[in-house]
Amino acid sequence: MFDTVLIANRGEIALRVARACRELGVKVAVVYSTEDAGGEVVRYADRAVCVGPGAAKHSYLNIPAVLEAARMVGADAVHPGYGFLSENADFAELCAAEGLTFIGPPPHVIEALGDKSSCRSLMARAGLPMLPGTLEPVETLAEAQEAAAAIGWPLVVKAVAGGGGRGIGVSRTPEDLSSVYRETRRHASALFGDGRVYLERYLSPARHVEIQVLADRHGNVLHLGERDCSVQRRHQKLVEETPAPALGRDLLDEMAAHAVRGARAAGYVGAGTFEFLVDAAGRFSFMEVNCRIQVEHPVTELVTGIDLVQEQIRIAAGHPLRLRQEDVVPRGVAIECRVNAEDAVRDFAPTPGRLEQFAVPAGPFVRVDTHAGAGGTVSAFYDSLLAKVSVWAPDRDGALARMRRALGEVRIAGPGVRTTTAFLESVLASPDFRAGRYDTGLVERLRQEDPR
Amino acid sequence: MFDTVLIANRGEIALRVARACRELGVKVAVVYSTEDAGGEVVRYADRAVCVGPGAAKHSYLNIPAVLEAARMVGADAVHPGYGFLSENADFAELCAAEGLTFIGPPPHVIEALGDKSSCRSLMARAGLPMLPGTLEPVETLAEAQEAAAAIGWPLVVKAVAGGGGRGIGVSRTPEDLSSVYRETRRHASALFGDGRVYLERYLSPARHVEIQVLADRHGNVLHLGERDCSVQRRHQKLVEETPAPALGRDLLDEMAAHAVRGARAAGYVGAGTFEFLVDAAGRFSFMEVNCRIQVEHPVTELVTGIDLVQEQIRIAAGHPLRLRQEDVVPRGVAIECRVNAEDAVRDFAPTPGRLEQFAVPAGPFVRVDTHAGAGGTVSAFYDSLLAKVSVWAPDRDGALARMRRALGEVRIAGPGVRTTTAFLESVLASPDFRAGRYDTGLVERLRQEDPR
Repeated sequence: MFDTVLIANRGEIALRVARACRELGVKVAVVYSTEDAGGEVVRYADRAVCVGPGAAKHSYLNIPAVLEAARMVGADAVHPGYGFLSENADFAELCAAEGLTFIGPPPHVIEALGDKSSCRSLMARAGLPMLPGTLEPVETLAEAQEAAAAIGWPLVVKAVAGGGGRGIGVSRTPEDLSSVYRETRRHASALFGDGRVYLERYLSPARHVEIQVLADRHGNVLHLGERDCSVQRRHQKLVEETPAPALGRDLLDEMAAHAVRGARAAGYVGAGTFEFLVDAAGRFSFMEVNCRIQVEHPVTELVTGIDLVQEQIRIAAGHPLRLRQEDVVPRGVAIECRVNAEDAVRDFAPTPGRLEQFAVPAGPFVRVDTHAGAGGTVSAFYDSLLAKVSVWAPDRDGALARMRRALGEVRIAGPGVRTTTAFLESVLASPDFRAGRYDTGLVERLRQEDPR
Repeated sequence: MFDTVLIANRGEIALRVARACRELGVKVAVVYSTEDAGGEVVRYADRAVCVGPGAAKHSYLNIPAVLEAARMVGADAVHPGYGFLSENADFAELCAAEGLTFIGPPPHVIEALGDKSSCRSLMARAGLPMLPGTLEPVETLAEAQEAAAAIGWPLVVKAVAGGGGRGIGVSRTPEDLSSVYRETRRHASALFGDGRVYLERYLSPARHVEIQVLADRHGNVLHLGERDCSVQRRHQKLVEETPAPALGRDLLDEMAAHAVRGARAAGYVGAGTFEFLVDAAGRFSFMEVNCRIQVEHPVTELVTGIDLVQEQIRIAAGHPLRLRQEDVVPRGVAIECRVNAEDAVRDFAPTPGRLEQFAVPAGPFVRVDTHAGAGGTVSAFYDSLLAKVSVWAPDRDGALARMRRALGEVRIAGPGVRTTTAFLESVLASPDFRAGRYDTGLVERLRQEDPR
């Protein structure tokens, strides 16, 4: 096992990873920006190294500073969390060159799966069901128009370097294709330094369902079931749950088998997530792979009892998986709600500010992942996630009742700070969500019904 | 289901019960003393009624005031929590006379089991294994001497009205019997208004193992497995876990079957606990029944997934149990540590005072039951329990690592306030506890080794 893990992240996930390290008897080091100097994980860690000012590109994305921090603390491994450097193949490569274990897949796997176009080709070859689309990037508008005519409308123009809901443009008719194509290329260049795009049938509304996989360095691959992440606004998830309601176990088992096949085909190592879309007829198609721990991993932990971050660290340390597929027995229902510092009325605009009051729920079968506290600050530099409230119950009705109870205990206030708590409560109360019959269009429909 | 439940208790259990009510869609009313006016549960409840000043006998034990509070808020049921009025048959009777459902066993069952001597007779008749002792109370010293000669030394003189570790005297030799007998009678009179005592073989050290049972009003009885509560000081539990380590499933299954048989014999209704002692040879004997929710119920909830307080409320509302015995499938290992405001160095003397800092652990598979918070006060009027820290893991090593991590996150401070956190850490670190080979003598041995 490692002696010291450097956590190259911030917020709730940094604290989450730190706790996993502690339980494994591994020393904890973290990087932090000047903006986060007063943060919980800085106190929690054995060592903490400031890597730059607030803006992420000067601190959490500052690769030389992060590597220097790893040298300073004598780390033998780096955990990248999610976001920031977590899916950066160059960073993973540089870690290896420094003799540091990057806790994630090998660099060439990150690269192959991070390029959405090469990932799509790889998974198509592996036999995963795909949406109609281009297997190669389209290079010109004329190429795009030709491909589009074959795919049909609506379709989505996607950045090859995108992911996590960013770098996506929707073309609804042949008439808007050229503007969507040009705009998405421009966005992709600006966001990722890579303007290449590809085309795919646009399935919306749809169910967004993902499969958690674990793979070790010894060729063992297993899945930990699915998460339904269909409650989204602007491709960002708000509520996640497992099992996926109302889809049928056969479909989900088949999806999981495809994810395992895809992970094997890619030579995947570590914890990863295969995302799928399910259409109204119950047909599913591969969407993308996330080469990291997901924000919503707690729901999988709650039903399987498996600590995913500990498994990531064990795998990176070369341990074979201790579980076989038949040992993974999900139990009950888990739901996660993301409490963000955002104003749901003003299109989920972030509301940074000082937190004067910060009380989160507790009690039986409620888990809260948060780094925030009264007296702290929601920084405008980073994402607006304040707390992940997760619940478990033997059945879905029990989980819904528990989540309503838990959200009712949230007390977060400060000048200018709004949270998504009331909006999450309206999602839970909606007949579609309660019935388990919802899709990626749910949030928009709820906002049209009640713009509050 | 009930419309409004009045919680006749305070502290963490009042909040615990309030959460269960919320999840069942039941309105929450609480009583409180002037000392607890600023308490968390007073804010949490829909209605809160002050029933008197700090001293429990004038507030939480003030039956007319509690019944008046129930009338005021229009409650249709009363949850007594643990301690206070929870095993008071007269109170249960008065509730019934007021048309209030007492959430607990029927008054005659509380009475029959609360009288330790009549309980012993009942369970002996039901075939439960008993320690040598008297089936009837002993009325005179001469009678005690005669019985003692048959039982042998060491033996314990126990108050008929005792329980929960109070009203117990240990006679180690024939010479000290008369003084122990007289002192225990005097204590029993003072504590319980009932000086009657009985005699029993004293088994110490021993394993203290208890079985959780649930019984509905329709004749269904099941057990939810055991809890090992051997880590005690002065008969007060400090650490509890399930499964009981190193005892063997056959013994524990037999013990559970005896508990179910005992519950049937008593006509038990509700959640109850059958306590047993296990000697070094692995023989177990019945000790007593607790007619209420136990402090340590979270460990059972964590391995079974069953919300015991919700079950109590459902049973009281007349619902049949939704589970059969085969549906109760414990999973993994759970441990609870009681963080008390006590000075372990000064014989666990309570340390009341103001709490300036109050941070409790969080994160995966950690549950904290607490009513306390920074700015609050540990009152000298009530017991010294600050927080119950419970963890779950797939195996015992994982649970131990998790508990060490969790206790390491406890930050509680205030002028004069000490906590048992460091002592609990020393228990967890002790080779005997780690090996699962410990008994009721563990705490004393640890204190002799290291009086800090």
